[in-house]
Formats: sequence, structure tokens, C-alpha cells
Amino acid sequence: MDNSFGTIFRITSFGESHGDVLGIILDGVPAGLNFDLEVIQDELDKRRPGQSYLTTTRFEKDRAKILSGVFNNKTTGAPICLIIENKDINSSFYEKQKDFLRPSHIDYSAFKKYGGYSDYRGSGRFSGRITAGFVMAGAIAKQILKKYGIIIFAYTNSIGNIIDDEKPPINDLEKLIEIREKSLVRSINQKKSKTMEQLIEGVKIQKDSIGGTIKCIISNFPAGKGGPIFNSIESNISRAMFAIPAIKGIEFGVGFKASKMKGSEHNDPWIVKDGIVQTIKNDAGGIIGGISTGMPIEFTVVVKPTSSIGVPQKTVHIKTMENVEIEFSGRHDPCIVPRIVTVVEAMTANVLLDSLLIDGSIPRIFKE
Amino acid sequence: MDNSFGTIFRITSFGESHGDVLGIILDGVPAGLNFDLEVIQDELDKRRPGQSYLTTTRFEKDRAKILSGVFNNKTTGAPICLIIENKDINSSFYEKQKDFLRPSHIDYSAFKKYGGYSDYRGSGRFSGRITAGFVMAGAIAKQILKKYGIIIFAYTNSIGNIIDDEKPPINDLEKLIEIREKSLVRSINQKKSKTMEQLIEGVKIQKDSIGGTIKCIISNFPAGKGGPIFNSIESNISRAMFAIPAIKGIEFGVGFKASKMKGSEHNDPWIVKDGIVQTIKNDAGGIIGGISTGMPIEFTVVVKPTSSIGVPQKTVHIKTMENVEIEFSGRHDPCIVPRIVTVVEAMTANVLLDSLLIDGSIPRIFKE
Amino acid sequence: MDNSFGTIFRITSFGESHGDVLGIILDGVPAGLNFDLEVIQDELDKRRPGQSYLTTTRFEKDRAKILSGVFNNKTTGAPICLIIENKDINSSFYEKQKDFLRPSHIDYSAFKKYGGYSDYRGSGRFSGRITAGFVMAGAIAKQILKKYGIIIFAYTNSIGNIIDDEKPPINDLEKLIEIREKSLVRSINQKKSKTMEQLIEGVKIQKDSIGGTIKCIISNFPAGKGGPIFNSIESNISRAMFAIPAIKGIEFGVGFKASKMKGSEHNDPWIVKDGIVQTIKNDAGGIIGGISTGMPIEFTVVVKPTSSIGVPQKTVHIKTMENVEIEFSGRHDPCIVPRIVTVVEAMTANVLLDSLLIDGSIPRIFKE
Amino acid sequence: MDNSFGTIFRITSFGESHGDVLGIILDGVPAGLNFDLEVIQDELDKRRPGQSYLTTTRFEKDRAKILSGVFNNKTTGAPICLIIENKDINSSFYEKQKDFLRPSHIDYSAFKKYGGYSDYRGSGRFSGRITAGFVMAGAIAKQILKKYGIIIFAYTNSIGNIIDDEKPPINDLEKLIEIREKSLVRSINQKKSKTMEQLIEGVKIQKDSIGGTIKCIISNFPAGKGGPIFNSIESNISRAMFAIPAIKGIEFGVGFKASKMKGSEHNDPWIVKDGIVQTIKNDAGGIIGGISTGMPIEFTVVVKPTSSIGVPQKTVHIKTMENVEIEFSGRHDPCIVPRIVTVVEAMTANVLLDSLLIDGSIPRIFKE
Repeated sequence: MDNSFGTIFRITSFGESHGDVLGIILDGVPAGLNFDLEVIQDELDKRRPGQSYLTTTRFEKDRAKILSGVFNNKTTGAPICLIIENKDINSSFYEKQKDFLRPSHIDYSAFKKYGGYSDYRGSGRFSGRITAGFVMAGAIAKQILKKYGIIIFAYTNSIGNIIDDEKPPINDLEKLIEIREKSLVRSINQKKSKTMEQLIEGVKIQKDSIGGTIKCIISNFPAGKGGPIFNSIESNISRAMFAIPAIKGIEFGVGFKASKMKGSEHNDPWIVKDGIVQTIKNDAGGIIGGISTGMPIEFTVVVKPTSSIGVPQKTVHIKTMENVEIEFSGRHDPCIVPRIVTVVEAMTANVLLDSLLIDGSIPRIFKE
Repeated sequence: MDNSFGTIFRITSFGESHGDVLGIILDGVPAGLNFDLEVIQDELDKRRPGQSYLTTTRFEKDRAKILSGVFNNKTTGAPICLIIENKDINSSFYEKQKDFLRPSHIDYSAFKKYGGYSDYRGSGRFSGRITAGFVMAGAIAKQILKKYGIIIFAYTNSIGNIIDDEKPPINDLEKLIEIREKSLVRSINQKKSKTMEQLIEGVKIQKDSIGGTIKCIISNFPAGKGGPIFNSIESNISRAMFAIPAIKGIEFGVGFKASKMKGSEHNDPWIVKDGIVQTIKNDAGGIIGGISTGMPIEFTVVVKPTSSIGVPQKTVHIKTMENVEIEFSGRHDPCIVPRIVTVVEAMTANVLLDSLLIDGSIPRIFKE
Repeated sequence: MDNSFGTIFRITSFGESHGDVLGIILDGVPAGLNFDLEVIQDELDKRRPGQSYLTTTRFEKDRAKILSGVFNNKTTGAPICLIIENKDINSSFYEKQKDFLRPSHIDYSAFKKYGGYSDYRGSGRFSGRITAGFVMAGAIAKQILKKYGIIIFAYTNSIGNIIDDEKPPINDLEKLIEIREKSLVRSINQKKSKTMEQLIEGVKIQKDSIGGTIKCIISNFPAGKGGPIFNSIESNISRAMFAIPAIKGIEFGVGFKASKMKGSEHNDPWIVKDGIVQTIKNDAGGIIGGISTGMPIEFTVVVKPTSSIGVPQKTVHIKTMENVEIEFSGRHDPCIVPRIVTVVEAMTANVLLDSLLIDGSIPRIFKE
Repeated sequence: MDNSFGTIFRITSFGESHGDVLGIILDGVPAGLNFDLEVIQDELDKRRPGQSYLTTTRFEKDRAKILSGVFNNKTTGAPICLIIENKDINSSFYEKQKDFLRPSHIDYSAFKKYGGYSDYRGSGRFSGRITAGFVMAGAIAKQILKKYGIIIFAYTNSIGNIIDDEKPPINDLEKLIEIREKSLVRSINQKKSKTMEQLIEGVKIQKDSIGGTIKCIISNFPAGKGGPIFNSIESNISRAMFAIPAIKGIEFGVGFKASKMKGSEHNDPWIVKDGIVQTIKNDAGGIIGGISTGMPIEFTVVVKPTSSIGVPQKTVHIKTMENVEIEFSGRHDPCIVPRIVTVVEAMTANVLLDSLLIDGSIPRIFKE
């Protein structure tokens, strides 16, 4: 059960960083959908390593390959299995270091849970690389949501102390996606983008890493969707976000700022405008009581600095139980934020598609 | 499915704020456990309205009552149904105001989802009052966890701008619980407690409300528990937290601060001390890769200011679609943070008990 | 998880035979449905004890009572909690006999699973009486299905060797329900009904019991519903049937007879008649590959003879581990088949409603 | 959700008959288990086509291939993905016949559910071939259960009118497996095996098919396992069985015979023998109230005659809506019973392993 997510649209993840493949099963995709591998590849390309000089030197083309569920270029309603093959595998570092617990890595937790049988190569099952599967699923989910005008857009909101505090114009998210894709760090703030880039370059030279935040905005999501209580949109999105390695916090709307606000400030007044019930502002982030209000859904996640760094660190040899200080080797991103942007979008799409299928709002057969 | 949570230990919530009862079903409680209604009542008393002059004037004794699952004062393994009866019901305000959308309340979302058939009295199913059920379940979960030395402790970390930034001594959480219970606002900082109290009193006089944050710490939770990916402890705790009305954000360990940190700062170095593998500090909040590290689990949630306030607000009449400004009546808490502290503990207990049952770490029969 | 069933329409059962109440939670009932307690009571009356001289002498009126989920006589979309209170409780027999394992009763299985903590009074949680909750849920499910012309009809097909092998005219199931309700044994064969009655009376005098079979027919269930593989209608109906105490087998269409047939006999030829694709006969019982064909769904279940009998039986005293022969006391039905007819209908309705909700074929809001 | 089964041990099926691969994901396999592909291959070989002159002429070696979840020949706790590649694909028949509804095949149900987008080649997703995945999962489940002495054994109990009514000696099921594997029809009755063989040969010559029954016996399954009500072993096994194409009925213990029995005959008296509580006979089939009694679990399923036959059949052209009579081409088994024997064992193993993991009876790490 650990590797499945969703009710009607259910994804099941498998594969390891240095194994043969990484993959995902998509159960519950409506039949009759035009299936275009390029749509998936485009999303994968935004997540893949080696996009720029700022990412890991592991070179992977990450080509999506389909094993089942599509016939005559249409989805059939059967489970879709998508994989990518691992090509540029170099496990030599991991062999040498396997008994040293990498700080803030899964090594010790996994050792206790799986008794030392985990595949440690490239963090194995716990590698951020497994999110490639999430992205492939999300590409299809996004494609369906887009038919209903629903656009999901995430971007780098901060890297270290460089914070983009401008409120983005959300009336044209597709335009923002274009702008974002011109930035190496997936920022939509041209000036700050450069500074962020320099910051990352700096920590890279230091063999260190840096954290950041990602903002996600969803437009045109209809009001009255999602469930109350345990099936709230906030519950499901947050559950999905914490499945992404390195994410350590999430807030909806104004989020943590709400702690310092009065009700009279935080409450979003209702207004009828152009015949549509809406709120004058959107501090709630488009969700109240777990259910969508029709306003844009907005949330922010924090990405911790990559745990894999090249500076000497204190740690323990799990077999000899000695305290040591070592310098870990391996290939890694000095800042994983820009690549996670795509994963955040994908998992959000997976959640929202499921909520609309649960609700009966999306047909099980597309005629197109 | 909206009203159930958990896999082996599954709770199912029912009831409305102004209906006959509020209740919860607990499925999967091991057999043979001593069942003491007072344990449940003690927890309920920490959540119930009317605890002090700072809470709502709705007066409810909230007496827990058992309908099934217990025999000869022991749990039987059968589903346990617990209810509390609603007594002090005054729905007159709600009748008059029912067609005006209360800002930042569920009214519009629910209208779109349920077509206007929701029970609007006291917010009905969307009232914070339904968390009384969560608390009853959590009382039993806590009792079981305590047998394994696992203590769950939450407290008010901030109210508005009054922030308690002292790091609590976590070696004796039970002592901290005692201290906390002496504070009307559930703070463990004697000085700040008073200031927080005054702040709340101030907003109460203004018929306004105020937000805050709650910190939760779990000690002695064993390493290697929880699942990876979609069943991570962070995923499950966050999903549980967002089921609590008014919670809008969550962060684990240092949380959002991680965005400004370097890996060399954020990484928690491993050390063997007294024969135990541990980390020198705990910025990860006791969870890495979704799995417990053996260090205390730590997280913080933000509670928005209560949406129910007595000042005039702009809104819409849902039937006439007119824009109006009105002053809503009703009984409410000027600050809901102190009462939610108990709910946070309860839902955390529910999640952690389930994770240990899934893992096979807790027997299905207690002999006691 | 043991006590919940269904995905979108999920029922959760609780309560014991001699506890305070028996109950059921219905999650996922669409909002806006006219709620009529009499509809539920009518179904309960068909299952309740003491209907005739052929049933147990336990006298229970089994009055349905609603605790949540209904407002202004309409469903609200919130979980509906329905209970019946246990009135005519006489646990004295059970106290005396509690350490003797009743043959073919749950006593030993439950002892091993729950360590002797089960409520043994009237079989506690394992009593057939818990199906009263299933019936209450089924009454609502049936009411919804009926809006779509879907009728679920079950009847006593055999008692002991008395077998009603006439094929019922299925064009008017409501008429058949009327006929059935005139029979004390819920047969639709007037002649055989009498013989069945006499057979039951005979075994009653002998303090013995007798088994039988129940046939269930569903008309107007649309083609193309249900899921393939693990979510097939056959999988879900069978899972539901085996949740009813005493059911030991199920077959769809011609069922076990298929083992002796050739493909050329068993295959149902397709034909277009009146513009509708249908089969000339229906040996498949309306389901192929787990998915409905549009033909009537037909299945048969076997009900074992009631385990509670008054003749001397060989057994074991679980504490002294002695082999003994004793005569168990208690009130029971000499033949439980006629009362289970209603439960079979109810659980079938629960499954089929869920399958249509999963499929998006039923709206989440009724305007009526 | 249609393609997943199980709670802790969850399998997810994918792939089509004439697609690239058939596969299965196994989530929840304990870590540290010796992984031997030959164990899986041995089971697959019992199911694969082309085993004898009595099976389909499609020639497939069905080689199991592993994509994830195993490292250094041990399971890691990560999801295991197993596939087989389809090699001997000849879809030409299906192209020509695709618009004619094959009687008692999924064609029409699938057409209504998936709008004509299904992969029709070799029945695509609805082919019996997808059970190859069930068998791969079952091979691993069986291997784990065997560590606890639990043996699962199924055999051909009848083909057409040839019924093996001898009660098998169940004290040495492994011996029976050996005997069975010497029979082309997977019978354990040497004399009847020959007659069954001849019967199948006869219907093959007639281009027809024949049904049969399969009996399954599980020894050494401990008492007190499985859940009550909706999670009963009977519920879960039956749900699993109806996921196997062609199965149309199931009965536990004496099953349908119970309908003609009195309680005094059907009840299984308890006795202490060799210090163990057991029943003198086992009409209940080892399960009472959904929970195991410690006696062998016994059930029988009926397999309908293969729908694919070569004689002329009445049917409908789905596009022209004309009534026609045609002779369908294709490769098929005249009797699928012998190959399904292996699938029945596999799915039973999958269910029982899950029930023991849910119960906490099996560790999450094996040290071997």
C-alpha cells in the first residue's frame, strides 16, 4: 500500500535509482483519450537530470516508454504502465560508502525498517529519481484537466534568502509557464532568477547545497469539489507533497502568516461580480473546509537543501558503530528546487484528477 | 470514504454540531485493553467549549458515551462506537443568517457540493465540534502508545505576534503536559501565557479573532516505522492535520526555515551515544524519507483566526445574489488554538497507532 | 477495516446482539434525497425476529432510529448513522454456556483471534443480528437504485430438499415481491411454500435446523457497469454475501451447472431485438468479465442450517479442555433462510449503488 | 482501483494478451527474502499455454523477468515488478472479427464500459492470460507461507460429467502435488484423469469446450486468522476467485450441499485430540464467521466452458447491428480447468499472505 496513491485514478510507483527501470502504473485513466508520448516526454524533460550546469552531472535522457494500456494511440481504460530505463549508472561511490550513514538521508531509517536489505545504490528506492514516475502520471492527469480549462502552475518562489515576493498575475498561467521555462531556476522573476542562479553556483563550488520554496497555483478549478474531513483537497495535496523527497512543509493561501492575523483581516469577503460568486481576496488559497471555493487554489511547499553534499560530515559506521567524519562522494544537485517544480505540478494534477473522478465530474469515456 | 481515516486502526466520524449526537467508530482497536471512559473524558474536557472565559459561551459538558465494542470493561476487538450528545443547542442565529455566505466559512463550498441541503445549524457537519470524535479516538490511541513509552505532546507555540521561541525540554513531556494544563491558552511559557491571554481577551472585546501556531512533539517513537512514499509518516500526519478545521499549514522539524539553509547547516550529523545511533540535532523533525529516525518527531501547524467574528463583513445573499454587509451572530471562540492543541495530539496518536499496527509492531490482543 | 465495505458508498457496521445498539454508518449517500424512515422500517420488518411462528422467539420490534446525516427530511451528504436498540435481551443462557464451544459457531475462531475478550452474549458481534445494519443501508441504496428502474429481488429458492425449480417471470419483479411477502418462508411458489413451511415446523419440533438456497435477480441494471478484474461485480457481490453469517456458497447464472456444460451449450448468443443488444438466454447471469451485460443479474447463495440447535452435541470446554456432550439453550430460528432473503437484497443494493457511484453514473446531488 | 488487490500485500496487475508485456507489481513483500526466479518460473510453467496437446496452440515460454524490488538476490521491501513478454502474437483473427460480439465474451460489456477503445486482440486486458501475473505474485506468497508450514493445493475435481468424488488424503499435500503434476488434466485420480483427458480430446475435435470444477485445500493455516464481517477469509478468497476469468461460483466446505442438511448433520462437533482443539469433521471448510478454525480450509470453484469455440454461433455485428451467424477463429483451450488450477492456488496464497500480514503474524524482515 505504500506505493499506491489515489482512489479512482490510482498510481502505483516502482523501480530504483540504479535498478533497470523506474516506472508507474496508472489505473483509472478514462478510455478514448489521445495518447501522446511527447506530452509525457516534455514533462519528464523538465525534471530530468543534466538540464543545465546547475543540476547533477548524472546524464539521463529519461525516455518514457509505454508497456501497456494504450491501443491505436488511445487509452483503453486498462492500466497504463510507463517506464524509463536507467542508463548512466555509476554505483561505485555507493559501494564504498554503504555502511556510513549519510546525514539527513534515509540510510538509518531504511536500515531499521528493512534490516539492511535496501538497494543503497543511488539511494535506491528512496532516490528523488522515483518522482520521474509521478511526473509521467501527472502529464496525463494535466492533459485531462486542461480539457476542463484547469491549469496547474508551479514555480520557484525562493532559493535561500532570495525571495520572489511579487504576486504573479494569474489570469494567464500558460504565459507564466513560458516565462518560467526560460529561467534555469524556474523563476518567473527575471531579475531574481539571475541572483538565484548565482547563489546556486556559489554553493555548488562549495560542494554544499541550498533549500528553497515552490509556489503552486491552480486556476479554473470548479467550486464544490473535493471532500470534507479526511478527504479534503488540502489533506490529499499535502499527503501527495510529502511523498516527494525533500519536502518538509506546506501551507495553503497565506498559510503560516495566518497565525499573526485577526479574523477581520484573514476572512475573504464574498462578492458577486459578473454574476459569479467569488472572494475579494484569496487568503484561504481557494479551499475552505477541504472543498474548493472556485477561487485559484494556492499553496507553497518548502524544499530542504539537498542532503547529498561534498563537505566533510560527522557520521556513524553502522557495522562498527564508530563515530567518524567523512566526505561523501556522489553526483547530486546543489539545489533540487527547480527540478521539483515539475514534480509538484504533477502530483497536484494527480490529486485533482482523482477528486474530479471521485465526484463523478469527469466521464469515463472520452470521444475525441 | 470522506469520513474514514486509517488502515488497520480506522476511525469513522459522524454527527453534526446541532444534531442529536457527534460520534466516532474505532475499528481495529486490539482486544483485551482496559477501557476507562474517564481517560476519554479527560481528553474531551481539554477540547470542550466553555473551559474558560476565553472560549465560546456554548456550554457543553461533552460527556462521552459508549454504544458498542466494550464488554466487561475490556475492548473486545469489535468496533467501538463513542458518542457525545449535543445539549446546548441554539440554532436561531443560523436560521436567520442561513442564506448569507459567512466569509471564510464552508457555506459556499458546501452549497456547491451539496446543493444547499447541508445542515447549516452551527456549521453542521463542518463545525470544529466534529473533532470531539477525533479526540475520543485519540484518547484510546494515546493510551495504547503510552504502553510503549510513546508520549505525544502539543502546545500553543504562538498566538498572533506572541511567539514562544524557547525550545522545550523534551526529556519529560508528561511534566510539560502538567505545566501546559495550568495555562488557559495551553502555553508552557508562563510569561508569554499571560500575554497571549490578554491578546485573546483584547480581540474578544473587539468581536474579532486571532490565529496562532501549535507545536507537537512525540518522544520514544521507535526508528524504522512508517512507510516510504505515499504512506510516509509526514504524509499521514499532514493528511490528518488538514482534516482539522482551521489548520492551513504544517512543517516538520525546522520546516520552512530549511528554505534558507545550506545542506551543511540543515543536515543532522549521526553519532553513537550510549550505544544508540542518534543525530546531534534534529532539524529533520524525526522523520527522513517518511520513516522515523528514532529522534523525537516534531512538527508545527498553523491555525487560522476563527472565521466566526462579530464585526460587519461584506458578503453575498446566495438566493438573491445581492452584495451586502452584515454582522453575523453566533457563539464562537476568539481564538481556537488552545482547544485545537488537544485535537492535534489526538489525530497524531491516531496516525501513529495505525502505523505501528500496519507494521505488525503492536499485538492484536492485550493481556492485562 | 473489517467493518467497512464499499468505496464511494461506504457502510461501517457496529454493535452487538446483546449490547445497547446495532448500527450502521452510511458514507457517500448523495445529498437532497427524500429520507423516509418508514422505507427503512419496512425493510427491517422483513428481517426482524418474531415475524412468524417459524422464527426465533426473541421479540424485537427493531425500530430504526437516525442519529445523523438528515436535515429537514433530506439527506445532506453527511454520513448517516442509523441504529436500532436491543430490547429483549436475555443473556442468561450465554453466561452458563460461555466456555463450551458451540459447534459450527464462531466461539473457537473468535477465542483464538480475540483472546477470549469477545462479547459472547447472543454471539455478540458475530450474531446474524448485525445484518440489521446492512438492511438499513440497503433500504436507502434500493431507494436510489429504484429511481433508475433497477429492482433487486431475492426469494427462497429451496429449503432442504424442497426446491422451487420454476423459472420466475422476471418482467415484473415488484409483483413477485408482493407474492413473496404473502409466504411465511419468502417463496414465490405457492404450493412449495406450504411444504417448506411444514418442513421447517418439523425440524423446529426436533429442536433441529435446516438449510436452503436464495436466488437473487436484478432487473434493469445497465450494461457496461462494474469493473474488470478485482473490482468485478461478481467479486464485490460475493465479498458482500460472505459477510452475511451462514452463507457458504455463491454461483452466478447457471453457476455450478456450467461445469458439466459444453461451450456451445453455455454460451449465450447475442441478438438485436427491439433495437437492443441482448442475449437469447442468460446462463452468464448478466455479468461477463466482471462487467454487466444489460441482462438481468442472477445469482444463488446457499444458507447453511442454523448452527444453534437444541439437540445434544459433542464439544469441548475451552478452559478445562474436556470433551463433553451438552444440549445448548438459546433462542434461534429453525431456518434462517426466509429472514436472510432481505439481507441478500440489501447487500446487493449496497454493492450495486457503489458500482454506479464509482462509475460516475449517479449524481452526488438529487433535486427532488 | 480495479487492478489492485490486497491491503498490506497488494498486487497490481497490468498488461494485455497481445501487448508487449503482462506484469504484476507486488507491494508489501517483506525484506530479506531469498528471491529465486526459478520458483516463479516453476509456477508459471504450470499455467503457460502449450503444455500439452490439450491446451491452446499459442506457444509462449512465459519467461518471468524482474524489473524492480530485488537486490543481491534478496527482496528489499520495495515494490517488486515482474513481467513476461508476449512473443507468439497473431492478432489477424481478431482484426477480422473485431466487430462481431463473441458470445459469452467480454466484447459487449467492454464496448459499453470503454466505448469501443479496448484492445480487442486476444481479448486484450480481459484475456485469461493476465492471470500469469497473479501466478507470479502467488509464487512468492506461497514461498513465504511455506515457511510457516502452510501448503496450498488445488486440483481438478471434475471435467464435465467426470467427477472425482474421492476425498483426498490431506495429511501430505506436497505428495498430492507431485501426483497431480503427472496428470495432463491436473487430477489426482489416476483412473479419472485418463477419462477426463479423453473427454477434453473429444470436445477439442468438435471445436467445442467443456467446463469443470477445481477443489482447493490449505493445510496448517492457523486458527483465529482472517477478519470478521467484510474482511472474512471467505469474502476475500471469493473476491479473488471471481477475478479469474471463467470462474462462476464458489462454495466453502460442503457448500451447496448444506442447503439440504440439518444443523445436527452439518455442525462440526469440537473435540480435543492430542491436546489440540479440532472438529471431528470439517463441513465448514475451515472457516467459521470469516475466521479460520485451524482445520484445513477447503473450497471448490466452478470453471465455465471456454467461451472461445470454433462452431458456428449466433451473434450481432456491433456496428451494423445485424443479427448474424459466424464461426469465430482463434486459438484456445478446449478446457481451461487444468491451467486455472495454478491460478486458484496463486490467488489463494495472495489472500492468505495478506491476512497474516494484516494480523501482524508475519515479520516485515526475514533474516535468512
